[in-house]
Amino acid sequence: ELRGESASKEAEAAPKKSKKKGGKYQPKTPLGMRDYHPEEMAVRERVFDTIKGVFKRHGAVSIETPVAELKETLTGKYGEDSKLIYDLADQGGEILALRYDLTVPFARYCAEHGVETIKRYHIARVYRRDNPVMTKGRYREFYQCDIDIAGEYEPMVADAECVKIVTDILGGLDVGDFLVKINHRQLLDGIFAVCGVPDDLFRPICSAVDKLDKTEWPEVKEEMIRKGISGEVAEKIWGYAQQKGGPELVAKLLEDEDLCANESAKAGLDAMKLLFEFCDCYGVPANRVSFDLSMARGLDYYTGVIYEAVLVGAEVGSVAGGGRYDNLVGMFLAKKGKKKDKKIPCVGVSLGIERLFTVVANRQKSQEGAVASRPTEIQVVGIATSEDKQEILRERMKVCSELWEAGVSAETSYKASAKFMTQVQHCEKNAIPFAVVVGKSELEAGKIKIRNIVSKDEEEVPRDQYIARLKELLAGSSQ
Amino acid sequence: ELRGESASKEAEAAPKKSKKKGGKYQPKTPLGMRDYHPEEMAVRERVFDTIKGVFKRHGAVSIETPVAELKETLTGKYGEDSKLIYDLADQGGEILALRYDLTVPFARYCAEHGVETIKRYHIARVYRRDNPVMTKGRYREFYQCDIDIAGEYEPMVADAECVKIVTDILGGLDVGDFLVKINHRQLLDGIFAVCGVPDDLFRPICSAVDKLDKTEWPEVKEEMIRKGISGEVAEKIWGYAQQKGGPELVAKLLEDEDLCANESAKAGLDAMKLLFEFCDCYGVPANRVSFDLSMARGLDYYTGVIYEAVLVGAEVGSVAGGGRYDNLVGMFLAKKGKKKDKKIPCVGVSLGIERLFTVVANRQKSQEGAVASRPTEIQVVGIATSEDKQEILRERMKVCSELWEAGVSAETSYKASAKFMTQVQHCEKNAIPFAVVVGKSELEAGKIKIRNIVSKDEEEVPRDQYIARLKELLAGSSQ
Repeated sequence: ELRGESASKEAEAAPKKSKKKGGKYQPKTPLGMRDYHPEEMAVRERVFDTIKGVFKRHGAVSIETPVAELKETLTGKYGEDSKLIYDLADQGGEILALRYDLTVPFARYCAEHGVETIKRYHIARVYRRDNPVMTKGRYREFYQCDIDIAGEYEPMVADAECVKIVTDILGGLDVGDFLVKINHRQLLDGIFAVCGVPDDLFRPICSAVDKLDKTEWPEVKEEMIRKGISGEVAEKIWGYAQQKGGPELVAKLLEDEDLCANESAKAGLDAMKLLFEFCDCYGVPANRVSFDLSMARGLDYYTGVIYEAVLVGAEVGSVAGGGRYDNLVGMFLAKKGKKKDKKIPCVGVSLGIERLFTVVANRQKSQEGAVASRPTEIQVVGIATSEDKQEILRERMKVCSELWEAGVSAETSYKASAKFMTQVQHCEKNAIPFAVVVGKSELEAGKIKIRNIVSKDEEEVPRDQYIARLKELLAGSSQ
Repeated sequence: ELRGESASKEAEAAPKKSKKKGGKYQPKTPLGMRDYHPEEMAVRERVFDTIKGVFKRHGAVSIETPVAELKETLTGKYGEDSKLIYDLADQGGEILALRYDLTVPFARYCAEHGVETIKRYHIARVYRRDNPVMTKGRYREFYQCDIDIAGEYEPMVADAECVKIVTDILGGLDVGDFLVKINHRQLLDGIFAVCGVPDDLFRPICSAVDKLDKTEWPEVKEEMIRKGISGEVAEKIWGYAQQKGGPELVAKLLEDEDLCANESAKAGLDAMKLLFEFCDCYGVPANRVSFDLSMARGLDYYTGVIYEAVLVGAEVGSVAGGGRYDNLVGMFLAKKGKKKDKKIPCVGVSLGIERLFTVVANRQKSQEGAVASRPTEIQVVGIATSEDKQEILRERMKVCSELWEAGVSAETSYKASAKFMTQVQHCEKNAIPFAVVVGKSELEAGKIKIRNIVSKDEEEVPRDQYIARLKELLAGSSQ
């Protein structure tokens, strides 16, 4: 579900029969789409906050584009995956489709508005009529979280910043050990040329290489032969594709005379050398980056460095993917009648946010029990008899409004006759740390009782001092 | 574009001819949809933060639902506005449509998941194939921001909290003077009955009353007569509909014997009395709330209190709308085969966020010039010759990474040969307050120069102390 990741092979529309069960409508979400419940939203918000924090530290701005694009904007960008695009009905007017990713809308945005330099992030949902497998987290509607840097710049500086951003984000989230794999399309093309792959088979062979992370070599080799190269050529490619490492691997390959005689391979290797150097300048830990010659990414539009991030030991697939794509905006500019060769070089990366949600939620669950979705800090609890319950209700509402005024999040039961213990249990269930207790006797004494929900300790405080005291307690409890 | 607001009368699909101009594709957004640029996103984020802050203070949780719903979920909910629903193409599988508002998906959510009590907010975009008028801010894709409280509760407590939430939000945003108009559907029905409107004309007459904020009485009266009541009956309604005020108006109407003989009118008035009392308990300023008998809201599903907020003296229409709808979730529960009479009473309000963006952006523009969209605090500026520019570039990257590590947002030019003054001008243009200057002489002296972009003051600081000094300066400049 990441940028540059191919759709599932079994991809196809849901069978027509699922349309109605016995002709009876049931309130439900569409197939492959889902509701996010409050607990999930709480995790999501925390993950988004971490990610946005990193983006902002890097001075990125954000944009938003429509959920729908002209169908023609999407046409010819996704190869055979185009069949997964959700079309809108033709109700008169333009022919529209739901966005398939955030990269093509970004390129359209730059072309439409004449934006030549921008560092922007975009967090939004995209749509694919893929065969949904909910248990594997494969949905038809899912979040992507992209950052892209557009502009004519010094080689590899922005490319290295993308690696820095991904390592900062994954390091900032509670996801455990991770690795950013890097490679270069020009190097791959050079390797294919040197191994004897004909030019017109570069992309098909590249897409076969891309499968090496999930598929054993013999099977990939078969695919290569089927696609038109000899077993000998395939084995040569395999000789390169198995290699992975750090700057020392770049140095070693730069000594490979056959390889470096190829202009494209040499350019790719020089770029990788620079990328490692710049990653070091940016303080990226060396053990987080792996030059991996088997990593190829599915999408056709990459023209330079490519990235993929994986969690070590987690079975969730890759959690980030991207690369440099220098020609995509130009495709739109040409449509706009601009100079044919006008380019807006771009590099960017897409975070697999749904997979990150899953990992973060699971780790938090195992560490600290239920994740609190309710931000309430104080529950205003009443003690009332059937005679004074209306009076106490009004008093509770006043106390709530005092707390809100003071910037404290507070709630009170909407029922006049709520029982004391029911109200306290509500606090326990929803991880509300403190209750403020309002009853006839406290009212008459001009006091308010504060109850610590966990310890059950209670203290009485004068009415004009309880907010200050609560703030002290809240500050203490959050430490 | 608010909840309960009727679609424009001239609503119709865009003419087929606009599909293509001369058959040539241009990169553009779909008709009636638009991109949000970084400056707009900055305003949007500030507005959202204020609103979410209020929601959280009230202990609300958030949910997200799919952008598409089963077409049948939306069917029969919007009356004649149903023609504005965006359908997805039938590509095999379920028949889907884009959500038209957030209220029906919320009701579907409660019914599907068996949620009987929740206080949730939802900020998301909705879709209407209305005739777009961009200059008036009427789009086909626009944000709604809803809060709803579901559950069987003490009468009017949750209803009053909705008023409190709206006044807190509008008071917290920079939108000037505002007024929350309130009325009650049962009171309106009672008035219609007392005036002599036949039962089956209640809704059509109610929708005529709803037009009184934009249309003069004689025209509305004509509509009423056309809809089947006499001029005399219409004038009686007008006698009531002109009245507006505070709790004293409720008291006055409670003395109207004809009116109070009607059960529905009496129930409505008792509710309004309680609402005013509870608003007072919640600390809602009395001058912010107006009991307005001409306010009726368009949607059919309201069953109790109705709200509408307007900015005084601003020509943007209403900025919030909502009310109580006790039967909507039940419609879905009945489909699910639950007990026929099962109800999940709900009350909620929808903020007209696009209108609020416009007002906030305009006020901020007039007050403080351009709104900074770029969160960058520090620009790392290089002074380099053609000999040392590569070295200085790497040094700039290292300094950036030190600043990021310290949690400071920082950027540096992606060009090795960026000129000093170009870099400084970039800071001025983007409201970046400070620059850190890195040059050969500073490097050799083990120092870093800090430049205040506005005052042009410069100071040299030892390399190991510049971050602490910058944090001091940033803390000072934000005060």
